[in-house]
Amino acid sequence: MATINDIAEKLHISNATVSRALRSSGYVKAELKEKIFRTAEELGYAPNPLAVGLRTRRSHGISIVLPSMNNPVSVELLENLEKLADRNGYHVMISTTDGNIETERKYVQLLDAGLVDGTVLVPGPRRSPEEEYLQHIRKRNIALFNRDLAGLSLDVVKSDAVQAGRLAMEHLACRGYRRIGMILPPLETSLAQERLEGCQEGADAAGIRLEEKWMLRARGTTPAAGKAAADELLSRQSRPDGLLVLDNILTVGVLQALREKNLSLPEDLGLVSFDDIVNGELVGAGITYVGQPMPQIAEALFSLLLLRMEGQPGMARQSICLPVRLIERGSTRRL
Amino acid sequence: MATINDIAEKLHISNATVSRALRSSGYVKAELKEKIFRTAEELGYAPNPLAVGLRTRRSHGISIVLPSMNNPVSVELLENLEKLADRNGYHVMISTTDGNIETERKYVQLLDAGLVDGTVLVPGPRRSPEEEYLQHIRKRNIALFNRDLAGLSLDVVKSDAVQAGRLAMEHLACRGYRRIGMILPPLETSLAQERLEGCQEGADAAGIRLEEKWMLRARGTTPAAGKAAADELLSRQSRPDGLLVLDNILTVGVLQALREKNLSLPEDLGLVSFDDIVNGELVGAGITYVGQPMPQIAEALFSLLLLRMEGQPGMARQSICLPVRLIERGSTRRL
Repeated sequence: MATINDIAEKLHISNATVSRALRSSGYVKAELKEKIFRTAEELGYAPNPLAVGLRTRRSHGISIVLPSMNNPVSVELLENLEKLADRNGYHVMISTTDGNIETERKYVQLLDAGLVDGTVLVPGPRRSPEEEYLQHIRKRNIALFNRDLAGLSLDVVKSDAVQAGRLAMEHLACRGYRRIGMILPPLETSLAQERLEGCQEGADAAGIRLEEKWMLRARGTTPAAGKAAADELLSRQSRPDGLLVLDNILTVGVLQALREKNLSLPEDLGLVSFDDIVNGELVGAGITYVGQPMPQIAEALFSLLLLRMEGQPGMARQSICLPVRLIERGSTRRL
Repeated sequence: MATINDIAEKLHISNATVSRALRSSGYVKAELKEKIFRTAEELGYAPNPLAVGLRTRRSHGISIVLPSMNNPVSVELLENLEKLADRNGYHVMISTTDGNIETERKYVQLLDAGLVDGTVLVPGPRRSPEEEYLQHIRKRNIALFNRDLAGLSLDVVKSDAVQAGRLAMEHLACRGYRRIGMILPPLETSLAQERLEGCQEGADAAGIRLEEKWMLRARGTTPAAGKAAADELLSRQSRPDGLLVLDNILTVGVLQALREKNLSLPEDLGLVSFDDIVNGELVGAGITYVGQPMPQIAEALFSLLLLRMEGQPGMARQSICLPVRLIERGSTRRL
């Protein structure tokens, strides 16, 4: 790409004159102006987007900041957002935080820096309210996915996590499972909390008593942590006959544990995962799961962002909650 | 974040004076300068990175531009590159192209625009030499993964695709498979070409004749295309007993086809995938595959980029080729 400098050198005139002509600001003789435009075209001049961004305060980019891409939900979210952005003339920058709040802050700040016009954020867990940095971000073109952050007036799009818990529990109950175990993620995000709440509601409705000893909290959100929790649960003398895994990354580890112990789904244990795992239809007889409507979620997130970026920056905070579905495959027994 | 404007307003002085003071360029009275710095601190002033980028021509960001993230190889590449970038003080922007060359060009141009200092590029397929745009990119801080683009003096890091083909074929041969089928990706990238070349070498060495009728080219690089190709291959009267799938996205579809037809691995067919599929250890008795050394590949890509960005922009073009490994799991029979 040629610069203003290249055009000025070629025509033996000053950068300022070229710049005035190209931006149509200030007087430049018509003849010279034409010459400048012709040369710009010849040399393949393109304005420096950094400079344009500074001037127009628009980058035509959005960023997606999320803990990790190692998750089919993230991949589906990204694919859908990219399509929508492209259709609307935005480029997309993706950044992963590994759940680290300092990294998350660094990437979200690129919004204030003008490197992007809007941000879809999947926040990592906050260990204390002091860690929250979002109130210090000047621009409010931020849409959150699946996390309520207390006290921040930011748009949120989520799927109904309470309904998800209820559906999963009802499914196990109506398939005749009564001794229900749970593998939970370690940190109490609003998402995990609401899923658990729904499970409890579903159990109450079905007259199932949830036993504390069968509810294990994994020590991380990794397959290894899921495997360790399942190993512990399944080595007990008294075992559940149905299992809810409240995070799909943990599900991968739980399945590894079952395989090592030569336990089969659904013969030895019924299993419902919260969100599918990648290639879940190919594992055993397929993994039954509660799924989120990712295309609709992406659509809602992008629409809200677009409204704030292009139309109604001052609109009131929006909160959208979309219904989930249970997808039955072979890891729970048939009626 | 406060701006220069906020400081100027607070102190009732001009933006230009604030800017001169903060950048220590031009004269500002010592007393006023101190006041400006104090106010900057009070208001939480941070320089606009766009402006800093224009001035210093450094963004401290790298971009990773690749066709899709729906692939365990991509995810592993990204995770490793992000760790390396973070350790070296760079932020990372990821963009996916869906294999579309116009989209790819758009994102790679952000390098010339100064939005990033370097780019790791996994090029999509070029349908003709005219489509190649990379010679028009001014900055050469680009490292390519697994694709040789003819005539471009860009750094390349790849894994040994010929060796991969040879290893996969030798494995099937020494396990007693003789009637070898292949599912190939549709387009003749250098990667696919070299994998096929290696398979041919391996077959020659083992005295196996490859039958044209058992070599099917998929009509896309999607699970559906892989499934369609496998459906066609497996519906023939005379069938292979061993199958090489030269792209892991196709493998997913091939496994769907096998499941529909109630065919088991390795009883009814031996299968080797080029690259693992996500959760491949959980599918059936596990999928045997030829794997690339992603941590080492990421390390080489980032090192080359870092050298160009920070040390030796003029160094000669580097081409690094790393060895692959065969990981034996249950989809091929044991000795």
